[in-house]
Amino acid sequence: MLQLIMLFAFGLILASAEANQSRFVNELDLPEIVQQLDALTKRFNDLEAKYNHGPIAFKASLTRAVSPGPNQRIIFDDVKLNLGNAYNHHLGGFVAPLNGTYLFSVYVCSAGGHYIALDLLRNSEIIGKVQAGDERYTACSSETTIDKLNAGDAVYVQHHGGSGDLVHVQEDILNSFTGSLLQVV
Amino acid sequence: MLQLIMLFAFGLILASAEANQSRFVNELDLPEIVQQLDALTKRFNDLEAKYNHGPIAFKASLTRAVSPGPNQRIIFDDVKLNLGNAYNHHLGGFVAPLNGTYLFSVYVCSAGGHYIALDLLRNSEIIGKVQAGDERYTACSSETTIDKLNAGDAVYVQHHGGSGDLVHVQEDILNSFTGSLLQVV
Amino acid sequence: MLQLIMLFAFGLILASAEANQSRFVNELDLPEIVQQLDALTKRFNDLEAKYNHGPIAFKASLTRAVSPGPNQRIIFDDVKLNLGNAYNHHLGGFVAPLNGTYLFSVYVCSAGGHYIALDLLRNSEIIGKVQAGDERYTACSSETTIDKLNAGDAVYVQHHGGSGDLVHVQEDILNSFTGSLLQVV
Repeated sequence: MLQLIMLFAFGLILASAEANQSRFVNELDLPEIVQQLDALTKRFNDLEAKYNHGPIAFKASLTRAVSPGPNQRIIFDDVKLNLGNAYNHHLGGFVAPLNGTYLFSVYVCSAGGHYIALDLLRNSEIIGKVQAGDERYTACSSETTIDKLNAGDAVYVQHHGGSGDLVHVQEDILNSFTGSLLQVV
Repeated sequence: MLQLIMLFAFGLILASAEANQSRFVNELDLPEIVQQLDALTKRFNDLEAKYNHGPIAFKASLTRAVSPGPNQRIIFDDVKLNLGNAYNHHLGGFVAPLNGTYLFSVYVCSAGGHYIALDLLRNSEIIGKVQAGDERYTACSSETTIDKLNAGDAVYVQHHGGSGDLVHVQEDILNSFTGSLLQVV
Repeated sequence: MLQLIMLFAFGLILASAEANQSRFVNELDLPEIVQQLDALTKRFNDLEAKYNHGPIAFKASLTRAVSPGPNQRIIFDDVKLNLGNAYNHHLGGFVAPLNGTYLFSVYVCSAGGHYIALDLLRNSEIIGKVQAGDERYTACSSETTIDKLNAGDAVYVQHHGGSGDLVHVQEDILNSFTGSLLQVV
């Protein structure tokens, strides 16, 4: 009987030692691990939300010649690409869905004997400009602009008011307006 | 003897209490932590695989004048940059290694008294177009296109068949074809 | 009394069993979990450091006509955008803050009857070239270049020495120089 009790006692001492380890785990390591894991999960969610968005990119072109009036917006009506659905082909404008840096490029061609100047605007501010013209030949020119947009900012192309010249944008050539989100900010 | 047994009993009660804490940890917290950690690791691996690829970007230019026939592909033979090795300077084409959004830009110059029109194609579809020409001066024009490609899609530049004019692309000017992956989709 | 001891003994066996689970947790699972968590945290920190940098992008334009001498650097003096502060409008140059792929675009216009050729340089190597000119009309042209830069590499625009022609860059048109980091390498 006493031997049995001593055996229990020996087992009990082991159990207590291990229970102490367990207590160390319970009261120090595990909460710390849980905190670290939660903190890392939060940082991961933030990074993923920032970068793992769908692409935002568009390209549209003109299907017909236009003879724009002063400050008239150019509606690139043939949408070739509209990932993220941020380009509105009725309004001819792009509305940024996210704060970030964006690249835009406008390509315009003028019929021979004319010239055309177009402005690229962010809301009401000119952020880019493209001009093309030649005495006899069709003349084409593109301009590429990089800018920072806030969500909701509109970017569009309009006839440069001050140019004072209404010209035909030649059809059959890809007069185009393209853009993409480069980086979320 | 009885006191000894009572001491054991007291110790046993403590051990049991701690063993219960330990059981709570063993059977609930730890598996949950392991699951959370595994899930986060998997999400991290997915995000890393998607974003932490090497860069894919190229630029090539023409070292000599070419007088392309109808629909002839333009081989930009002087490779300045080919990160990811997706541009083939023998074929003059870029083959997308990953699904994603890509930017391309083509710059072409025509000798005075001529004009040239080039198409940018994705497989067999025209996705961009650039035209340059002047009566007397060397005329240069670039066009920038953004498009979504599937892995394996080929993008290349060819003479616009309908233009009916074979012109010399002037040497010494960087007639060029450049592109980059913007975002994996 | 013996029953009490047997009861203790039964509890002790349970406690020992749980202590064994706890020992398994303590000596195997927990260190492994901590290692996994540390490894994932390190990988996350690396990825975040690589991608979660602020944007690096600029655009600058010319506020006045310039008549550049041979190999003279063009100072685009009106800074419209300078995220990351990598463009120096006194020197007219961009200095890469990080190893990576970058996109640049230069837009230049020449007064009628003149032409202008500009080189885009990385340190002392030409990586892009743009030319514009027309007998009568203002002629504009842009070129877009993608290149890999090491931190500290300088990129700037200068008059093409061999062109032998000093022309006025027309004011009132957005002669511009823009660029952005595309991907950290």
